[in-house]
Amino acid sequence: MDRILKRVFNPRSIAVIGASEVPGKAAERRTRSLIQGGYQGDIYLINPKRSELFGRKAYPSITEIGAEVDLVMVIVPPRFLVGAVKDSIKMGAKGIIIITAGLGESGEEGKKIETEILEEAAKSGTYIIGPNCSGMYSGSAAMNILGIPSLQKGSISVLAQSGNVIDSLTNYAYLKGVGFSRIISVGNAIGVNFHEYIQYLKDDPETKVIIAYLEGIKEGGELVRVARETVKKKPIIALKVGRSGAGARAAASHTGSLAGDDVIVEAAFKQAGIVRVSNVDELFDMADVFSKSPMPRGNRVAILSEGGGDNSIAADNAELFGMEVPVLGRETQDKIRPFLLAGMPASNPIDYGGTAEENPKVIAECVRVCMEDEEVDAVYLTGFFGGFQVIIAPHVADLEKQTAEELVRLVKEYKKPLFVHTSFAGQDIAALKTLRDAGIPVFESSGRSARCLGELMRFSRRRQAIASRPKPSGKTKDSPGVKDILAKVRGQDRNNLLETESRKLLKEYKVPLPGAIMATDPEQAVQAAEGIGYPVALKIVSPDIVHKSDAGGIRLNLSDDELVKNAFLEIVVNAARVTSRDRILGALVSPMAGQGQECILGMIRDPQFGPVIMFGLGGVFVEVLRDVAFRVAPLTPEDALEMIEEIKGYRLLTGIRGESPKDIRALTEVLLTLSDIALQNPEIAEIDLNPVIVHEQGLSIVDSRVITDFGHRT
Amino acid sequence: MDRILKRVFNPRSIAVIGASEVPGKAAERRTRSLIQGGYQGDIYLINPKRSELFGRKAYPSITEIGAEVDLVMVIVPPRFLVGAVKDSIKMGAKGIIIITAGLGESGEEGKKIETEILEEAAKSGTYIIGPNCSGMYSGSAAMNILGIPSLQKGSISVLAQSGNVIDSLTNYAYLKGVGFSRIISVGNAIGVNFHEYIQYLKDDPETKVIIAYLEGIKEGGELVRVARETVKKKPIIALKVGRSGAGARAAASHTGSLAGDDVIVEAAFKQAGIVRVSNVDELFDMADVFSKSPMPRGNRVAILSEGGGDNSIAADNAELFGMEVPVLGRETQDKIRPFLLAGMPASNPIDYGGTAEENPKVIAECVRVCMEDEEVDAVYLTGFFGGFQVIIAPHVADLEKQTAEELVRLVKEYKKPLFVHTSFAGQDIAALKTLRDAGIPVFESSGRSARCLGELMRFSRRRQAIASRPKPSGKTKDSPGVKDILAKVRGQDRNNLLETESRKLLKEYKVPLPGAIMATDPEQAVQAAEGIGYPVALKIVSPDIVHKSDAGGIRLNLSDDELVKNAFLEIVVNAARVTSRDRILGALVSPMAGQGQECILGMIRDPQFGPVIMFGLGGVFVEVLRDVAFRVAPLTPEDALEMIEEIKGYRLLTGIRGESPKDIRALTEVLLTLSDIALQNPEIAEIDLNPVIVHEQGLSIVDSRVITDFGHRT
Repeated sequence: MDRILKRVFNPRSIAVIGASEVPGKAAERRTRSLIQGGYQGDIYLINPKRSELFGRKAYPSITEIGAEVDLVMVIVPPRFLVGAVKDSIKMGAKGIIIITAGLGESGEEGKKIETEILEEAAKSGTYIIGPNCSGMYSGSAAMNILGIPSLQKGSISVLAQSGNVIDSLTNYAYLKGVGFSRIISVGNAIGVNFHEYIQYLKDDPETKVIIAYLEGIKEGGELVRVARETVKKKPIIALKVGRSGAGARAAASHTGSLAGDDVIVEAAFKQAGIVRVSNVDELFDMADVFSKSPMPRGNRVAILSEGGGDNSIAADNAELFGMEVPVLGRETQDKIRPFLLAGMPASNPIDYGGTAEENPKVIAECVRVCMEDEEVDAVYLTGFFGGFQVIIAPHVADLEKQTAEELVRLVKEYKKPLFVHTSFAGQDIAALKTLRDAGIPVFESSGRSARCLGELMRFSRRRQAIASRPKPSGKTKDSPGVKDILAKVRGQDRNNLLETESRKLLKEYKVPLPGAIMATDPEQAVQAAEGIGYPVALKIVSPDIVHKSDAGGIRLNLSDDELVKNAFLEIVVNAARVTSRDRILGALVSPMAGQGQECILGMIRDPQFGPVIMFGLGGVFVEVLRDVAFRVAPLTPEDALEMIEEIKGYRLLTGIRGESPKDIRALTEVLLTLSDIALQNPEIAEIDLNPVIVHEQGLSIVDSRVITDFGHRT
Repeated sequence: MDRILKRVFNPRSIAVIGASEVPGKAAERRTRSLIQGGYQGDIYLINPKRSELFGRKAYPSITEIGAEVDLVMVIVPPRFLVGAVKDSIKMGAKGIIIITAGLGESGEEGKKIETEILEEAAKSGTYIIGPNCSGMYSGSAAMNILGIPSLQKGSISVLAQSGNVIDSLTNYAYLKGVGFSRIISVGNAIGVNFHEYIQYLKDDPETKVIIAYLEGIKEGGELVRVARETVKKKPIIALKVGRSGAGARAAASHTGSLAGDDVIVEAAFKQAGIVRVSNVDELFDMADVFSKSPMPRGNRVAILSEGGGDNSIAADNAELFGMEVPVLGRETQDKIRPFLLAGMPASNPIDYGGTAEENPKVIAECVRVCMEDEEVDAVYLTGFFGGFQVIIAPHVADLEKQTAEELVRLVKEYKKPLFVHTSFAGQDIAALKTLRDAGIPVFESSGRSARCLGELMRFSRRRQAIASRPKPSGKTKDSPGVKDILAKVRGQDRNNLLETESRKLLKEYKVPLPGAIMATDPEQAVQAAEGIGYPVALKIVSPDIVHKSDAGGIRLNLSDDELVKNAFLEIVVNAARVTSRDRILGALVSPMAGQGQECILGMIRDPQFGPVIMFGLGGVFVEVLRDVAFRVAPLTPEDALEMIEEIKGYRLLTGIRGESPKDIRALTEVLLTLSDIALQNPEIAEIDLNPVIVHEQGLSIVDSRVITDFGHRT
């Protein structure tokens, strides 16, 4: 596939079906940008009503070109689409970009056309890009069929589900002189999915950074898998809308996307190492910075300014965006102090006010000392650099220019990021141009620059963490025991497992469970209780009762025979209120769990990401605070640990106020097993282990609920 | 005071002690900006070494001018300061601005000079501005002694604890053509405090918006009180640094400020209606917008764009920043639909893509319909407005200009905010200039614009809430009972009250307490328990034991005589391990509290804000989640209610899973009483009511701890 996509981005010839020269029309803008963009291959313009377009021969049909065509752009009314696709394939097209809108996003009629197109394409292995897309740009081929003039070649690749986001992005890029390697408007993405493009861009030597605008996600599990491999080589920065109800509404009306649960999107992106932003300007800022700056090894920043106020603001921002502003070591402080006014602290932030304004070389000297320090990962300048010539005197301009050159050398030498925030960023100043030309970010907004550096550091750590992990590998054993259980449930036309069945299923996966005994009458229950040892719990077993507690089907802490006997009778009577006697199979007698912290572990299937594993603490944490962590299956052990660590109540597991720490390892084991179960048994729609009591050693799964969906095959 | 400050901002004459014409020097820049800034009163330049400066006569001393002087700027070495101040006062100065640094912020020597200056000023009622400040600007007087050229008159007033923040702000203002009414660099603020300036600016007709940059806060209680009154008339927007450890470090080294606990700063600003930002560009954005836009009545926004992507982003931003994006009413939708492509939803966000680009008048029509709708409080345009002439065709420029003019009329007519985000904001476009000239904000960044509108809406609601509240009024009754208790504690050289005493104190303030009886031997304890009714709790009473539980001094749930007797003996034995027998006064026998939600209520004295009231839920909420709310005393009933509502665990008080709601009114009563106690008894340093059990009806204060500090008088 990658080989063919490579041809799509570097076609030897391009045909435009529906070419036009009516000014302002979508077809005209794209035909024109293709012709004027510098593309070196053959271009064929197809329009049955014209013999000439843009001073070139126009063909009545693609079949009459008399040559093979690598790539076809189609912009014809929907009713002509299938014919155009068939003809293109006949002419050897490797890829077909369909601009035409009014298809799947508009209703059933359009969906039918999409299906027909896909069937045709599948036969020949042709890629379909779009429909309802705004085109494509490829820097290496100087191929511009986006209809946006002024695109230039660079190292940023763009995948976008919205044409106007591409317009905004390219507008920012134009104003800042930044270029692109590939731009792909995916539109309805019926043929090639996001993760397939990313897979290609991962190994594309022209691409240093991938940015994506998403409205809905298809095959999110694959996206996580591919992204995880990709970020080891290059960053992915994504703007995913639909966080809010209204945002999802807007996205749905736009491309017919289903914007799923944003909490899961957030978790999946974190897991995959995808940097998430909220606005197009941030998307651009980050892409530009990530493609040019060295990667920091850690998150410790040295902050320098000639202004105390700017230093205070930068320090607050640094901590807000996850950086550390360490007190510098004595040696470093001693080296810096000579450059400061007498009595000024050199601890960090560093204030060289009073010396640097008239002699900016002080700045480079201080930056050098910080870069040399092993305990500094990045340097952040804030204040008025570049503007001292305005504030102090014109002759300072030369010194500022020389300082900028020295800063460029320092970044090259030490390979540590240098970020510059200056009030003069918006002005045309040679020193700042020197920095920018060398790829050193210069910002006018202190908030934007701090956020960018913070994200760069977060990404770098994230990438290191992901790179150090083995790929997740689900256990592949095929368990006949499990298949038998599910077959029985299916055979009885049920959609949930009895607790006895879910226990059996978990046991097949070697999940430790407290011993429990099924009893069908009060005497058996007493016998079981004596065998287990008091106190015990009794739980009703019936295919019709999923929420046992709500149905009065649970009795806890029973401490003698008499209590057990009565409890058995009670829960059966309660159960008989909601189902018939013959559907009440008995009661499960189990030991009371020992002391520990209550947790909830589970699995659901998300429409965007497939099987998702969940962890939370019990009680108010889940019910009141929604303090829950998610990860997309398959999980690595580190994923499992991380989701436990990220909940707000985490300290309850590490032991507070003298309590002993809980067995977090045991929790991660169960989370990993849930991931395996989900991947190996698509018939299982949902698993709910609730409550699970985690002890100092081991854990007790007090109750388990497994829901099936035999129509479901994710 | 206001009358004299008015003179300081509008002086009839100004003297500069330490005037200079050496290029680049602080004194030279300020002297020059004063002379060249258009000031119409008399200017006297003082420099004993020169007979002429800037082509004017220079005086050897201010005493030799031979005329009264309203305002004096002093910029002389510290050792000459006291003399300069004395001389200025002699010449009738109403205000003295001291630029000189190296005083209180540098050490004891400087602090001594500051004290001397203040003593001199106090005699004559002269205002001291600074020292260690960068000057002042007053638009109404065209008085510019900041040394920053290019300042122009406007309606924004600035109070700042950092000169370089003023530099940044004025730089933004210069680039955007925005002016100021007053700019005050407060420096070490030994004479006039922040809240006093705000008090003046509140009634200053030249000022529409007040912005402040703060490092440390003095007399925060007064700041809250004054701000609360001020925001009813005009917004206050503040950048307060020191959120982080490093930020506080930077601020401390800068002006010697003590940056206190940021959680309390956050709470105080909320209480006072102060809008808080984190960066200078935000400070500027908001000031500009707040000074020009109509105030929205609520937080419902209509979002319109020609691009689906931009709409999705805007909708997500809207909800992120606290706005509501309501589905519009059927009538409004019906009016809008004719302007959209067939089949496009008109629900909100509205996508007029395909119609508006070629005919931008569609935009004004849709905006009119939204403005007419009573259920829309503001309109937000996003996309490419102003740039259709670039994207589509040059002739669209005229239509865009006319549309802009119509939009200006609509804002005037309906008095609802209109915000415009456009990718073309940075370009020189007539339509956008029309909007800006009329005060309609035009942003290039979708995030910044959404944040600004969100803050405007939040401020507007906050102001309405504050305006509808009575001023807080502490009860003024003087309680001899309370004074007796405190006198006794002081007489015994203690710093904490016995529980019997704290109970007595609370009773004096009519706080309901469960009946409890002091027992000095086991028999008395049994008798008390029988009187109260079982079960009971026993708590040790000793002036040396503040943390009774840690000392083994509490026994709960005692259900019979024997248990009470044993418990009494046990806790006395435990107490004897930490103090001598004669310091153990006995045990308090009290009833066990009924069912309810555990809470913590308290009071502490903050070094910046004085008495601060605290509320939280018990257990993990405080210990693990730090889920605590604060307010500065005095509290209004609405403040008390709000602090209860803002904790994350609030739903536990309103009743979840069938639990009955708790008596929130009873909680607010106690919080208000704590506020009264704090204000009337400065000797009380800290109160801790923990736990308090709040029931369906009423509450039980299970334990109370009161700490005194007789050296302390806030």
